[in-house]
Amino acid sequence: AGGGGGDGAGISTTMGSSENRSAEIRKDTVNNRWVIFSPARARRPSDFKSKSKSNPNPNPNQSECPFCIGHEHECAPEIFRFPSDSTSNWKLRVIQNLYPALSRDIQPSSLPQNPTPTPTLSGFGFHDVVIESPLHSLHLSDLNPVHVGDVLLAYKKRIEQLRSHDSIKYVQVFKNHGASAGASMTHSHSQMMGLPFVPPAVSARLDSMKENFDQTGKCSLCEIQSNNFLIDQSTHFISIAPFAATFPFEIWIIPLCHSSHFHEIDGEKAADLGGLLKLMLRKMYLQLNNPPFNFMIHTSPIQSTPSQLPYAHWYLQIVPQLTGVGGFEIGTGCYINPVFPEDAAKVLREVCIT
Amino acid sequence: AGGGGGDGAGISTTMGSSENRSAEIRKDTVNNRWVIFSPARARRPSDFKSKSKSNPNPNPNQSECPFCIGHEHECAPEIFRFPSDSTSNWKLRVIQNLYPALSRDIQPSSLPQNPTPTPTLSGFGFHDVVIESPLHSLHLSDLNPVHVGDVLLAYKKRIEQLRSHDSIKYVQVFKNHGASAGASMTHSHSQMMGLPFVPPAVSARLDSMKENFDQTGKCSLCEIQSNNFLIDQSTHFISIAPFAATFPFEIWIIPLCHSSHFHEIDGEKAADLGGLLKLMLRKMYLQLNNPPFNFMIHTSPIQSTPSQLPYAHWYLQIVPQLTGVGGFEIGTGCYINPVFPEDAAKVLREVCIT
Ligand SMILES: Nc1ncnc2c1ncn2[C@@H]1O[C@H](COP(=O)(O)OP(=O)(O)O[C@H]2O[C@H](CO)[C@@H](O)[C@H](O)[C@H]2O)[C@@H](O)[C@H]1O
Ligand SMILES: Nc1ncnc2c1ncn2[C@@H]1O[C@H](COP(=O)(O)OP(=O)(O)O[C@H]2O[C@H](CO)[C@@H](O)[C@H](O)[C@H]2O)[C@@H](O)[C@H]1O
Repeated sequence: AGGGGGDGAGISTTMGSSENRSAEIRKDTVNNRWVIFSPARARRPSDFKSKSKSNPNPNPNQSECPFCIGHEHECAPEIFRFPSDSTSNWKLRVIQNLYPALSRDIQPSSLPQNPTPTPTLSGFGFHDVVIESPLHSLHLSDLNPVHVGDVLLAYKKRIEQLRSHDSIKYVQVFKNHGASAGASMTHSHSQMMGLPFVPPAVSARLDSMKENFDQTGKCSLCEIQSNNFLIDQSTHFISIAPFAATFPFEIWIIPLCHSSHFHEIDGEKAADLGGLLKLMLRKMYLQLNNPPFNFMIHTSPIQSTPSQLPYAHWYLQIVPQLTGVGGFEIGTGCYINPVFPEDAAKVLREVCIT
Repeated sequence: AGGGGGDGAGISTTMGSSENRSAEIRKDTVNNRWVIFSPARARRPSDFKSKSKSNPNPNPNQSECPFCIGHEHECAPEIFRFPSDSTSNWKLRVIQNLYPALSRDIQPSSLPQNPTPTPTLSGFGFHDVVIESPLHSLHLSDLNPVHVGDVLLAYKKRIEQLRSHDSIKYVQVFKNHGASAGASMTHSHSQMMGLPFVPPAVSARLDSMKENFDQTGKCSLCEIQSNNFLIDQSTHFISIAPFAATFPFEIWIIPLCHSSHFHEIDGEKAADLGGLLKLMLRKMYLQLNNPPFNFMIHTSPIQSTPSQLPYAHWYLQIVPQLTGVGGFEIGTGCYINPVFPEDAAKVLREVCIT
């Protein structure tokens, strides 16, 4: 996502020193993906004028926003709210998506066993929206750590509800912030999709982590070498710039203790993660000038038994959208990152939050 | 790529009728990828103002463009030009990329055999630019079919040169047009990268086509059912909207006779393909209002022996950038397409080119 043309605000100015390092190709062993690191790319010129900022033209008129408190009747049906017994003073709401990509009202279907050139499933699935705050003006990073933790607990609760549907194999939690990160709504929200299949990136990740476990006897994320890649640490989590980050300034927040499923998180860990997530978003906001961003929770298929997979370790990935992608990435599935993650980690480690 | 917010110019207005069809999940058997088709998504509102067009602020000052004729000295070194003996009247030039993602001047390296958490290759590889026309004002779709064919023959010639390097495993040919398709330069050009590894999307495609061949005894693209998906046909090629198109209005141009490597193309076929490619770009320009777009050539690893793989069939993929992507796609590798390809094919089939 994101417009093209040179490599967005913040990168070249932030990263003066390492632009003369030579290119390197690194493998992300968690996702089995190659990434090309090329600091020289950050210098290339653009003859398109500079691209849009995070929120170029946000809707100034809160009175038209269906996610705002008092506009509940303009939304698709509510699933639950926190606090659950609140009336006009809710903190967050989980609602159905009014324009869902998948539909909860049609029958799940299974694939024909024989090969066919046109394999098709019905569009059964769940697509929900998490309204993270009652007020239009508050972003996730403005909320206090416990409130951010409550957003995470809402994901947990909804995943546990979706697990009761045998046909749902995976739940993808994600957030889009800013137009070039794909957002169509400015009011702070995230989304959850319950899918009738395990998506390809998830299978690839689990296969890769399993292969690593079979070779080394260890979970790749339990063993992760933070060192130069460390950004911050809380009681139960670390945040790092991963060794083979796909995107510039990409951040992973990883639980310190092995856990294969995000929904195993408890209240205390959720508040702790809430604090670290807030800190990362604040640092990005300050250092990268309020960039558009996405975050995604990478967990395990929800029906997996035993519930603890020894090789699978969930994490939360945050991606500021600073550069666009082009035909190379669409064609190869391989990304070009102009910023070495050890440099990104240093910058983010040293941001001063007052 | 592309800004977010609703689903870009052209989609909802073009596709009135099928918006009430229910969602479907289809598998692309060539690439082993699931795609969610959800016409309802095209209707969702956006509170960001409408996004930028293809060339929002192109450089109006041609005298500053290094790709223009007369500015050859502002470019990285030339590799060859057509006609090869031309001086000031060249038709196209293949040059080195001045800000290459990979470098031809460093030693190739190979991976350590033992598992390591930080696998790294040196950034050896080739990154070239194909300047498609001497004049700033001409886009690829403005050139005559033989000139477009010459651009394709330049790709072929350069691939054949790169094949002589044992360390180069795959050559990705791609084009970015327009800022939200990633382009940083407006002058009509494409790019070629010679890679020291076979990229993940290529391995996945070849594995999937091989599996299909092993099961059915047939090449999936030789057997492709065009019917409702057909857009146009030339002597040696067909253009279709693929059954499980990842993107709205995505087009594949496929050689009618089995061929595993793009660089097997000859002069006659190149001119024929040039005509069909030009036609597809013209149709997109007219019907989708000059959208930003990418195209990619999907071929086989260049060192593969025997040279004809019975299951691998090259094709050219054209992707207009009408919608952005968000966290769902980054997280899952699975895309949501609001336009059924049979509807896109009908629209593109019926565009009248005068
Ligand atoms: N009144 C209402 N009640 C309930 N729900 C309402 C509503 N009004 C709007 N909505 C829903 O709210 C959601 C807001 O989501 P985002 O802003 O994160 O991005 P969106 O899903 O539009 O698309 C981005 O994310 C998806 C998934 O990554 C990408 O496919 C896409 O290209 C990108 O633009 C939309 O899905 C919309 O359907
Ligand atoms: N004087 C000169 N001589 C020679 N070469 C020159 C030059 N001036 C500029 N160049 C090169 O010309 C190329 C123009 O390429 P494009 O406009 O297609 O997109 P770019 O490669 O910048 O990035 C897009 O494509 C890549 C690959 O898909 C994505 O990684 C990226 O995010 C996206 O913006 C650039 O690569 C640039 O380095």
